[in-house]
Amino acid sequence: MKFSVTVTLKKDVLDPQGKVVQNTLQNIGMDSLKSIRQGKYFEIEINDNEETAAKKKVDNMCKKLLANLIIEDYKINKI
Amino acid sequence: MKFSVTVTLKKDVLDPQGKVVQNTLQNIGMDSLKSIRQGKYFEIEINDNEETAAKKKVDNMCKKLLANLIIEDYKINKI
Repeated sequence: MKFSVTVTLKKDVLDPQGKVVQNTLQNIGMDSLKSIRQGKYFEIEINDNEETAAKKKVDNMCKKLLANLIIEDYKINKI
Repeated sequence: MKFSVTVTLKKDVLDPQGKVVQNTLQNIGMDSLKSIRQGKYFEIEINDNEETAAKKKVDNMCKKLLANLIIEDYKINKI
């Protein structure tokens, strides 16, 4: 069973990496860009055919390693 | 108009960063993990109310800066 996980910085947390990308895009002429924020993306494959159990395992991975819950949010989707 | 962009390594490209995450997760007891691959995630806001035009601009950003098309694929979604 396959899941995608996106980890994003919380709304009020500064995103210096995204800011650099934003400045660079504006410097190469992308004027209509309003804002850009960068996050992380994971594709996770789990050996478990029961969706609820598999999702719980992914959730556990996010809490334990993939996301820093103090400054980041995460979203899990089945793919 | 807001879009999400995910940039992932192509299937046959080695993903050392993902491999480290995979090993770490297995070391902390996540035995049912089969594989994990890491990518990048962007949330992009565009000053344009016409969806086709806005999407084209995001596509252009991916080609010019966000993705390395030799080793990476990207996907754009409206959010």
